[in-house]
Amino acid sequence: MSAKSHTKFASPWPTKLERKQERAVKREAVLHAAVQSFNSKGFHATSLDEVAASLNVTKPTIYHYFANKDEILFECVRLGLDGIQRAAKAVQENGGSGSERLIALMRRYAIIMTRDFGICVTRTADHELSSQAKEQFRSLKREIDHAVRAVVIDGMRDCSLAVGDPKVVTFTITGALNWIARWYDPEGPLSPEQIADGCIATLMNGLSPRPGS
Amino acid sequence: MSAKSHTKFASPWPTKLERKQERAVKREAVLHAAVQSFNSKGFHATSLDEVAASLNVTKPTIYHYFANKDEILFECVRLGLDGIQRAAKAVQENGGSGSERLIALMRRYAIIMTRDFGICVTRTADHELSSQAKEQFRSLKREIDHAVRAVVIDGMRDCSLAVGDPKVVTFTITGALNWIARWYDPEGPLSPEQIADGCIATLMNGLSPRPGS
Repeated sequence: MSAKSHTKFASPWPTKLERKQERAVKREAVLHAAVQSFNSKGFHATSLDEVAASLNVTKPTIYHYFANKDEILFECVRLGLDGIQRAAKAVQENGGSGSERLIALMRRYAIIMTRDFGICVTRTADHELSSQAKEQFRSLKREIDHAVRAVVIDGMRDCSLAVGDPKVVTFTITGALNWIARWYDPEGPLSPEQIADGCIATLMNGLSPRPGS
Repeated sequence: MSAKSHTKFASPWPTKLERKQERAVKREAVLHAAVQSFNSKGFHATSLDEVAASLNVTKPTIYHYFANKDEILFECVRLGLDGIQRAAKAVQENGGSGSERLIALMRRYAIIMTRDFGICVTRTADHELSSQAKEQFRSLKREIDHAVRAVVIDGMRDCSLAVGDPKVVTFTITGALNWIARWYDPEGPLSPEQIADGCIATLMNGLSPRPGS
């Protein structure tokens, strides 16, 4: 090769950064394939052989990314809970009255409950996780509960929300929202946004007719 | 024995009716022991050996009443759903406006969700049941959903309830009520009645303050 032809050839080997990104993409693909099986068949009936086959690989490839099926389940619920936590943080940063923040948070929460990782959170019982993961799962759920409850309390204080027992009010809200993960049907007539809006309207306005409405 | 001493001695053997009653009591004891294990450890981790030991018997005795663990789980969820169906029927017979009937139904429903068989209904995922039981479970849940929805529609028609999409409104209600089974703590400060009343007040009045309240 002459000195003149110093054209830069792209290396057919990935850079360190590209390898890292590729690994992240593959890891995520395993989670996406696994969560769909957890949600439809349940954790116990999910076979990693089948998850691997759906990705055109065999089980040992999956063990390159995760230690075992328990770790995959925990990662799935963690991703679902992480989405809600980020929603709570974003809402807090945007500010507004307690009521405005609660509506914004409920909307994001409801949409997450129509997506795979959110559905996995509602469908997974504490006892399906290994004992260490169980503690982390509970603690993450408690944090979310406290984040929602803090917004509810702010709203009761600034008079944008009706006064009540913050614990019961919060669980009534999160119960209604978590349940979306059990009844939402992607083939059904209602879009995630329509479900979110209908559920929020029911919770905000209440079942009793309002005077003048 | 002389003809005079014809005192009637009670037979030490039970009558046919007594045998039937005794069998029912024992069968129910198995269900009560099993449901507590299902609710705390989950269906998969529940061992019938342990359930039997808690009743001072061994597993073969349990098989005298049930074919297998699947059948026991199905009986537990059936009993929970049966309680809600009876509540729906009683409320329908008592009459009143849609709103009055809905409040009465929600109260009974909420209390059932603090009891073992109700808790089992919420904690059991469809896929934990055998395929035949799964169909029955789904069909029973659908019946309950329709019974609640019928009361909601009656209330929207007689103007005792605010108008909305009956499906979304019903799932918002049943989601909030079903969730009680996940967060109710028998050791906690709130009684089942307080939880029922707080949850119903939140659902009826809504989170937005009402004018004049």
